[in-house]
Amino acid sequence: MYRIQDILDRLMPAESIEQTVDGLVIGRPDEEVRGIAVTFMATQAAIEQAVSLGANLLISHEGVFYSHRSDGNTLKEDPVVWHKKHRLEELGLAVLRYHDGIHRETPDGITSGLIEELGWQDAVCEYQPASAVLELQAATLGEVARLLKVKLNLPYVRFTGDPLMLCRKVGVLVGYRGGGELAIPLLREVDLIIAGEGPEWETPEYVRDAVYQGKSKAIIFLGHGPSETPGMKRLARVLRVAFPSLLVHVIENEPLFHWI
Amino acid sequence: MYRIQDILDRLMPAESIEQTVDGLVIGRPDEEVRGIAVTFMATQAAIEQAVSLGANLLISHEGVFYSHRSDGNTLKEDPVVWHKKHRLEELGLAVLRYHDGIHRETPDGITSGLIEELGWQDAVCEYQPASAVLELQAATLGEVARLLKVKLNLPYVRFTGDPLMLCRKVGVLVGYRGGGELAIPLLREVDLIIAGEGPEWETPEYVRDAVYQGKSKAIIFLGHGPSETPGMKRLARVLRVAFPSLLVHVIENEPLFHWI
Repeated sequence: MYRIQDILDRLMPAESIEQTVDGLVIGRPDEEVRGIAVTFMATQAAIEQAVSLGANLLISHEGVFYSHRSDGNTLKEDPVVWHKKHRLEELGLAVLRYHDGIHRETPDGITSGLIEELGWQDAVCEYQPASAVLELQAATLGEVARLLKVKLNLPYVRFTGDPLMLCRKVGVLVGYRGGGELAIPLLREVDLIIAGEGPEWETPEYVRDAVYQGKSKAIIFLGHGPSETPGMKRLARVLRVAFPSLLVHVIENEPLFHWI
Repeated sequence: MYRIQDILDRLMPAESIEQTVDGLVIGRPDEEVRGIAVTFMATQAAIEQAVSLGANLLISHEGVFYSHRSDGNTLKEDPVVWHKKHRLEELGLAVLRYHDGIHRETPDGITSGLIEELGWQDAVCEYQPASAVLELQAATLGEVARLLKVKLNLPYVRFTGDPLMLCRKVGVLVGYRGGGELAIPLLREVDLIIAGEGPEWETPEYVRDAVYQGKSKAIIFLGHGPSETPGMKRLARVLRVAFPSLLVHVIENEPLFHWI
């Protein structure tokens, strides 16, 4: 029999990060864990699904109340936030935010998860704290984008660059790491960056100018969730090994956007 | 005959904003203006086009060196930045960043430009400092998204929400204002937000939960450039009136992304 505290002790040992967004958003550490569900984003749909699967602990990578740092207090008068909080209490579902801990693994567990999902483990040259550098078999940018779309089952993929450009050296930057501060220096050593998302006026505009100058550079934005969901699926596999008597479910969020 | 200083005096009068990203990035205030080109982003392609049109002053809304605040010094060793700077010097093209001034007009000149481009001036209920609230003839979210795609000539539009939802009250938030801090409070008074871009885990996730709860809420992301380009076209019209003897060109950037 495990309590929520046992899961916390495994994921957030006492000597770990001091300043963190991680922790129990709702629920009590002494509750017995009847089942775990792991997801990128504890949407209201994921919450209902977790309960229907028999889980009483949901582990969410991103913030439950639409903010990286807020616990919902800044929006506590908001009817959507109120309804979600109220429903969580009604269901008795505990929610654990688990973001910093997995990103600070060596190598970053979210980055590794994406690379494993793509079957690219053997192509990794180097793990840096916020990125991984891979050397793939040469393929065009268009081919890589299509491969990602199929392998990650995405409705759309956005990219900047020449679809016919050959890519070999690739940098992987999950989540919001597609911004200029991380991605532009990395583009000096790679042809292509695969990222979650980032401000449009930074790296994509850099790539556009680089291409105009005749340089072979490109960036693919998978979307934030699609780039980090495989890392949370990987976490579920880790938890299944650590707590073999517990059922650990993965809840994959539906695509966030429609595209027309 | 006008000098660059005359344009600066018109756009950035001495009593205006103190802390600003606006100003001459390259060029001398005493240069004679032979022609002006106005664009959302001074890409390398836009720079070449400005010169080929006979302009020697390019007015750019976003930062020339892939950053909101940096003048390129933090990336001065970067080959793309170096090449762009070198080419600007070689061409003798002056570049004026004009971002804060137009956003701080009353109403915001970039927001007004988008609303005028859409022919929605008569639908405006209220201009707030960072947004406008409009009341449109009821249409479904899918219809509004398709209308925006056609009117703004966009390859793709992304949205979160039910395509069949009826929208009437609409909030417009140009550029990067699609984040939760501005957009979530505004969604309490509108059905739909039309924004440039914003972090995916904030407003789109809020909308996803709101829809799950049965609330009629939606967000459309046009892309940063598409949401702000009409405001820069509007600036060109203002400059043509202010400086009737000068040719003022508009340079529209190509779509930033491929989508597959």
